[in-house]
Amino acid sequence: MANKNYVYLFKEGKKEMKSILGGKGANLAEMTNIGLPVPTGLIITTECCNEYLAADGEFPRGMEEQLKEKLQVVEQEMGKNFGDENNPLLVSVRSGAPVSMPGMMDTILNLGLNDKNMKGLIDVVGDEWFVKDSYRRFIQMFGNVVLDIDGQDFEDVLDRIKTENKLESDQQLTPKMFDEIIEEFKSIILSQAGIEFPQDPEEQLKMAVQAVFDSWNNDRAKVYRKINNIQDDLGTAVNVQAMVFGNMGDDCGSGVAFTRNPSTGENKLYGEYLINAQGEDVVAGIRTPLSIENLKDQMPKIYDEFFEICEMLEKHYRDMQDIEFTIEKNKLYILQTRSGKRTASAAVKIAVDMVKEDLISKAEAVQRIEPQQLENIMHSRIDPEADLEPVARGLQASPGAAKGMIIFDADEAEQLVETENAEVILVRTETTPDDIHGMVAAQGILTSRGGMTSHAAVVARGMGKPAVVGCDALKIDYTNQKFYVGDKEFSKGDMISIDGGTGYLYGGETPMIDPELSDDFDTLLGWADEFARVVVRANADNPTDAKRALEFGAVGIGLVRTEHMFMEGGRLAAMQEMILSDTTEQREAALAKIMPYQRDDFYNILKEMPGKPVTIRLLDPPLHEFLPDIEELTEEVTELRCTGKDPSRLEEREILLRSVRSLAELNPMLGHRGCRLGIHYPEIYAMQLRAIFEATAKLVKEGYEVFPEIEMPLVIHVNEQKKLRKQAFEVAGEVKKEMGTDFPFKVGVMLEVPRACYAADQIATESDFFSFGTNDLTQMGLGVSRDDAQGKFLHVYVEEGILEHDPFVVIDREVVGELMRIAIEKARSLDPEFEFGICGEHGGEPNSIEFCHIVGLDYVSVSPYRVPVSRLCCAQAAIKHS
Amino acid sequence: MANKNYVYLFKEGKKEMKSILGGKGANLAEMTNIGLPVPTGLIITTECCNEYLAADGEFPRGMEEQLKEKLQVVEQEMGKNFGDENNPLLVSVRSGAPVSMPGMMDTILNLGLNDKNMKGLIDVVGDEWFVKDSYRRFIQMFGNVVLDIDGQDFEDVLDRIKTENKLESDQQLTPKMFDEIIEEFKSIILSQAGIEFPQDPEEQLKMAVQAVFDSWNNDRAKVYRKINNIQDDLGTAVNVQAMVFGNMGDDCGSGVAFTRNPSTGENKLYGEYLINAQGEDVVAGIRTPLSIENLKDQMPKIYDEFFEICEMLEKHYRDMQDIEFTIEKNKLYILQTRSGKRTASAAVKIAVDMVKEDLISKAEAVQRIEPQQLENIMHSRIDPEADLEPVARGLQASPGAAKGMIIFDADEAEQLVETENAEVILVRTETTPDDIHGMVAAQGILTSRGGMTSHAAVVARGMGKPAVVGCDALKIDYTNQKFYVGDKEFSKGDMISIDGGTGYLYGGETPMIDPELSDDFDTLLGWADEFARVVVRANADNPTDAKRALEFGAVGIGLVRTEHMFMEGGRLAAMQEMILSDTTEQREAALAKIMPYQRDDFYNILKEMPGKPVTIRLLDPPLHEFLPDIEELTEEVTELRCTGKDPSRLEEREILLRSVRSLAELNPMLGHRGCRLGIHYPEIYAMQLRAIFEATAKLVKEGYEVFPEIEMPLVIHVNEQKKLRKQAFEVAGEVKKEMGTDFPFKVGVMLEVPRACYAADQIATESDFFSFGTNDLTQMGLGVSRDDAQGKFLHVYVEEGILEHDPFVVIDREVVGELMRIAIEKARSLDPEFEFGICGEHGGEPNSIEFCHIVGLDYVSVSPYRVPVSRLCCAQAAIKHS
Repeated sequence: MANKNYVYLFKEGKKEMKSILGGKGANLAEMTNIGLPVPTGLIITTECCNEYLAADGEFPRGMEEQLKEKLQVVEQEMGKNFGDENNPLLVSVRSGAPVSMPGMMDTILNLGLNDKNMKGLIDVVGDEWFVKDSYRRFIQMFGNVVLDIDGQDFEDVLDRIKTENKLESDQQLTPKMFDEIIEEFKSIILSQAGIEFPQDPEEQLKMAVQAVFDSWNNDRAKVYRKINNIQDDLGTAVNVQAMVFGNMGDDCGSGVAFTRNPSTGENKLYGEYLINAQGEDVVAGIRTPLSIENLKDQMPKIYDEFFEICEMLEKHYRDMQDIEFTIEKNKLYILQTRSGKRTASAAVKIAVDMVKEDLISKAEAVQRIEPQQLENIMHSRIDPEADLEPVARGLQASPGAAKGMIIFDADEAEQLVETENAEVILVRTETTPDDIHGMVAAQGILTSRGGMTSHAAVVARGMGKPAVVGCDALKIDYTNQKFYVGDKEFSKGDMISIDGGTGYLYGGETPMIDPELSDDFDTLLGWADEFARVVVRANADNPTDAKRALEFGAVGIGLVRTEHMFMEGGRLAAMQEMILSDTTEQREAALAKIMPYQRDDFYNILKEMPGKPVTIRLLDPPLHEFLPDIEELTEEVTELRCTGKDPSRLEEREILLRSVRSLAELNPMLGHRGCRLGIHYPEIYAMQLRAIFEATAKLVKEGYEVFPEIEMPLVIHVNEQKKLRKQAFEVAGEVKKEMGTDFPFKVGVMLEVPRACYAADQIATESDFFSFGTNDLTQMGLGVSRDDAQGKFLHVYVEEGILEHDPFVVIDREVVGELMRIAIEKARSLDPEFEFGICGEHGGEPNSIEFCHIVGLDYVSVSPYRVPVSRLCCAQAAIKHS
Repeated sequence: MANKNYVYLFKEGKKEMKSILGGKGANLAEMTNIGLPVPTGLIITTECCNEYLAADGEFPRGMEEQLKEKLQVVEQEMGKNFGDENNPLLVSVRSGAPVSMPGMMDTILNLGLNDKNMKGLIDVVGDEWFVKDSYRRFIQMFGNVVLDIDGQDFEDVLDRIKTENKLESDQQLTPKMFDEIIEEFKSIILSQAGIEFPQDPEEQLKMAVQAVFDSWNNDRAKVYRKINNIQDDLGTAVNVQAMVFGNMGDDCGSGVAFTRNPSTGENKLYGEYLINAQGEDVVAGIRTPLSIENLKDQMPKIYDEFFEICEMLEKHYRDMQDIEFTIEKNKLYILQTRSGKRTASAAVKIAVDMVKEDLISKAEAVQRIEPQQLENIMHSRIDPEADLEPVARGLQASPGAAKGMIIFDADEAEQLVETENAEVILVRTETTPDDIHGMVAAQGILTSRGGMTSHAAVVARGMGKPAVVGCDALKIDYTNQKFYVGDKEFSKGDMISIDGGTGYLYGGETPMIDPELSDDFDTLLGWADEFARVVVRANADNPTDAKRALEFGAVGIGLVRTEHMFMEGGRLAAMQEMILSDTTEQREAALAKIMPYQRDDFYNILKEMPGKPVTIRLLDPPLHEFLPDIEELTEEVTELRCTGKDPSRLEEREILLRSVRSLAELNPMLGHRGCRLGIHYPEIYAMQLRAIFEATAKLVKEGYEVFPEIEMPLVIHVNEQKKLRKQAFEVAGEVKKEMGTDFPFKVGVMLEVPRACYAADQIATESDFFSFGTNDLTQMGLGVSRDDAQGKFLHVYVEEGILEHDPFVVIDREVVGELMRIAIEKARSLDPEFEFGICGEHGGEPNSIEFCHIVGLDYVSVSPYRVPVSRLCCAQAAIKHS
């Protein structure tokens, strides 16, 4: 049998040879072959690894000869010899499996140094400190990585010597001290590994290669492969690459450059370098690097070569590159190139420019933008560069950052903003409808209780106002107008900052970054829309949101939550009157007071969306949400009883408390809400339907094209929807007759209970459209109350990996996805075009949007601020699955 | 085309001809053909109906001739002629479709009477009152049913004449008054229908037949067919039957008899009769009827004939018969025979006897018993014969009836029972662990709040103690030791009765029926077990329940709820200490106090079930269930603060209130409970596991065969179960080592969250068995919180037919059934023998048990008192689907 080829030079490989050269090796080969001046080197194959392991640590026959032979080529190319006493070739040794494999052996640098050629190298480089430091590092790495000696043993020596000499940093060590360190390191190796530190570079190399191969079977690597379903027989390759030095004189240097400006996206080489320095020196900031522009004057030939390489690399990789280079004795080496990190706005500009430059396609441009980045563009946020220590963390209820004075009272917040133009953060245990004006006035909201669907969270998201809720660590003391976090005390008027995107609370003011929008942004989203199959609507409860949604490119409104409309001022009183009524007549009288407001609300929203569908969900929450809190009321009643101060108020509050108690529910999420209310008290939905249809008729008469879609919440059985649809048509008929005009409308269902998904084919016979309420589907499908779980155990589940994602962030495909699939299959078995949407936060999350695309939804509906990111995600999903 | 046969004599038909003779007609034909002396008659076919309707109300050609011809045969057989002036043949006319069809035309009796033959008949019968009453009834029925005149018009005449003559009942009318009435009725017909009341019997018959046919297409019938998916082209038949009279002299009579004693089941003819009387007279109770025994002496030939007929009928129908008979001029007629209603114990005895008599098979015997009947045997109940007016209605929390004095306090209840041997009903808004001793002492429990899974309901069911809970109408005033229902007032010490089987509350003492058990009962259930494929376990939380379950034939325990074990006396204090702990060490110390109790609990239960599996579910409810009620605590704290009486207690209670608040959940059903607690606080389950295994090891050492099965609640992901199973094996390993003995055990999961059903194949890889928690599956699958819904809207849904059944009573196959099916399919795709059970009340409900059989469960587990009925249902399901 002829010998296999176990060793390849970089120039003998190509990127398609990943399985035998490993990922890193194949990439080095690729770079070499497109003509980059990569420091030369060789790759020992994965096959060699497998045979070595199978033979219990024997290299396959012929491999060592091949290695020697290829190493000679490397020596020739570098003009240096391995082990040469005067100017030795030094190499790095790295592992490189076909798939990325954490847990494998680390890098060894400077391999090839020994006692003798260290001295020769000092002469060549002229920097004793550097060479000796390199040598002690090599011994340390070799001892640790190859000989498996605890790294701490070496650090202990360094620390001891620094202490003895009263030094604070490694930089202060002297070459003499290094001599001592090197000797001690060698002693450690002798005592711990039982061998002399090998002086023969070939022996060093052989041992390093063996160590890489052996590391394939260390415990960390094995566990990683098991968890990630990676085959055990892939094996790893070993990369042996010549080291180059930018610090061998003034004809040397090191630098980093981006092919475009990573901050603005401007198409102009951007970077910096230092003469006679290593890469670390550029980053370390001890000397101030020069702009890459200067290289044009200082080393014009090198600059031209580098510029050309940059252009070539960008063309080859078809993306902005982040390039590390070193100049060793007037020769340019490219050490690394990779896609460069960039700001959100740079990402957008670069993608758009590259399409215009014919470098990438529109589809590629759309795929280049990370959804998370777009989101950051949409909200002001705390400067990620700032070095801040958060005080506490709550739930990320509504994104964006805000800063302001601590104010505990809504009235006071409103007043301060009005009279003094103050910036305030409203801090409450929880918010209630009574706090709305304070929330409007505040820059942001911070609560100590409540979850992602608490009043504070929902209202804040609706307003696009930053909010952190359920911040458990906060102990609020209203009486003294203070709050405590551990032993820290914050008083009314103190400045704080919150970041609703991360959930962090900071003391004092923090540096903020404003949202950046641009024409490129619009261009990119326009392209996105060309690819998307799933379209994007917005959730909007008022004309302002509707307007904003349109600006952000929503094609309609997917969810108007009517309950918030009941919460404002005078309406709340009428609502409470309705709830506390004993008879249908009393309820109708109270509802009649609310009707004109509702009609105006619907009129104004519909008017903002001419020609576009507007889905209006009828009243959903349980009635007790409109009543005072039971605990507070109990407290008040007990107080009134004990003090005997105000007997008539006591009586009134006692009556209210009884009503609140009788309406209280153990599990309101699964209680008397949604269409169950509509069926129990038909007069409530009758009022809402009339308000919608009267608004519609009025707009039609005024010449507007409007498309209201009535949505029934919490339907579980076709019999419910039959009743509700009939009522809708009856009320519409009356209004058409009264107002003497016709108008279009649809009647559909929010599928948010598992049973509804199973009965979707039956319910479809009474419906024009369905929209998934995946928040409730998640709560019921997983048996997890969002508000209760997120602060209490869900984070533990995600942190410990019991659940891969927070199911309220990413759709749980196992159950929620399956329920969606079943519902779609059932409804479309009757009508292949049956319309499906999703409203709720999943509709704005990339992984979930991808699922929505796969499963065949027609639209997602998200808060106005998430419309752009959702448009992008819809396009990316369509491109990925085209 | 030859004429079809449109008219059949009873003797020309048979029961297989249902589609053309209708159900009733085919049955009359059958009775005639097995030789019963049924009053003769004829049937006009459904085909005739269809052709008549198709021809817009024309009888098909030849039909009228056939009718005349067959009627002559009837005349001959009865020895009376239709329309005869002296002794006319009278007939009844009834509709009879192939399927039972409410909404069709009612019966017309006495057809054939007219002014002339009425007089002749008076001479023959010798009872002017009866004949004239019969005639006016005929006119009234004819007017109402055939001519569609409002029945109230006729009733108004009767009322007026009674008022004019100051009479109180129809019985007081005189023959002279009937003459007036008859004339007025005829005027009504003339004025309203525009025709003279037809005096020609043939005309009367023709019009009646047309009316029956026309009623096939009336609105009620059409709607009924649509709802029930009955084809519109079935048509209805018409039954025309000779009327016979038991009141034509002393050679006449009427009676009712059962072939066996319907009260005891004794195999002896049982019945009563009256000479010279109609059937109604026997029932009406104006004259006292004679026992059927007397007929042997009074009319020996008739008696013998009747006795023979009874024997024949029982053999033919293979069931105890309820037979109506009439003797007209020494000739016996059988008017009706049907399966006789019987008491529960009679039903069991008859079924068992009939098997012994080789009359029916064991399978038939098993199918003969209504599950509902068996249930009644199992509990004392309120005498259904008693004429009682309930005061209010709550939820049927725990079956059985109880009576006793109203007592509002658990201590007082206990004391009264101990010192005075009193019977008390404990009345509370809700019960808590502090009330347990009072519940034990009381005859029954009544609460104004809480649902089917409230503390009161669950504990009462466990004790087999009658309970009515969530009785909204009750307004309890503890201060004055009274409760109110509307304007009724009840005080401490007043007697009340409750029926946990119906949910009714009664004032005062009510007559009770005690449970009746018998050997026959055991025999029957023994047979049932021979057929059943699904076996029956019991839910038992203590040794008493376990013992009872065994007596009732349970093959193991399917659910031990460990949480109730934490609620008693000293354990509750330790539990609260555990919950309020800040560190794992503190928690472990508190748990260590509970451990010995738990171990004894498990020891005692396992000891009662030698050789049988015992499934023990680890702690399930959220921790706040073990803490005081938040509202009561708020009240106490506010009171202490206002009065300033006891500052140190105030401080202590304030600390407790903060803890209770921080543990409070918005939707505890979907919150931090079940295995989520076990994963968050591993020390809790560690304690329980140790208690189980130590008890097991001890029993094994004592020579018992025990099979504990550890069940993890609320699992949604295999990763949870992986952790929990590992912990169980670790603790078991420790105990085995410490106690030096081996023992068997299983580790499984309660599938009670939709996600768990979808992930059943994954979870199965870490489980030995699954048990469905269909209560929670129903709550999550339908989005309905049981405790909240049942008092608030679920009853409306069931009453209005939106849902066919209460899904907490009957499994909702659409979603819960489907989730079960999916889980079974997934788990058994890996292991076709994978064990599945169900625990919870669905397992004791016939329709649900049938589904459990169909879907392939291995066992159901129910409260001890439901074990017998479940055994029966399992057998019936197996027989039905064999």
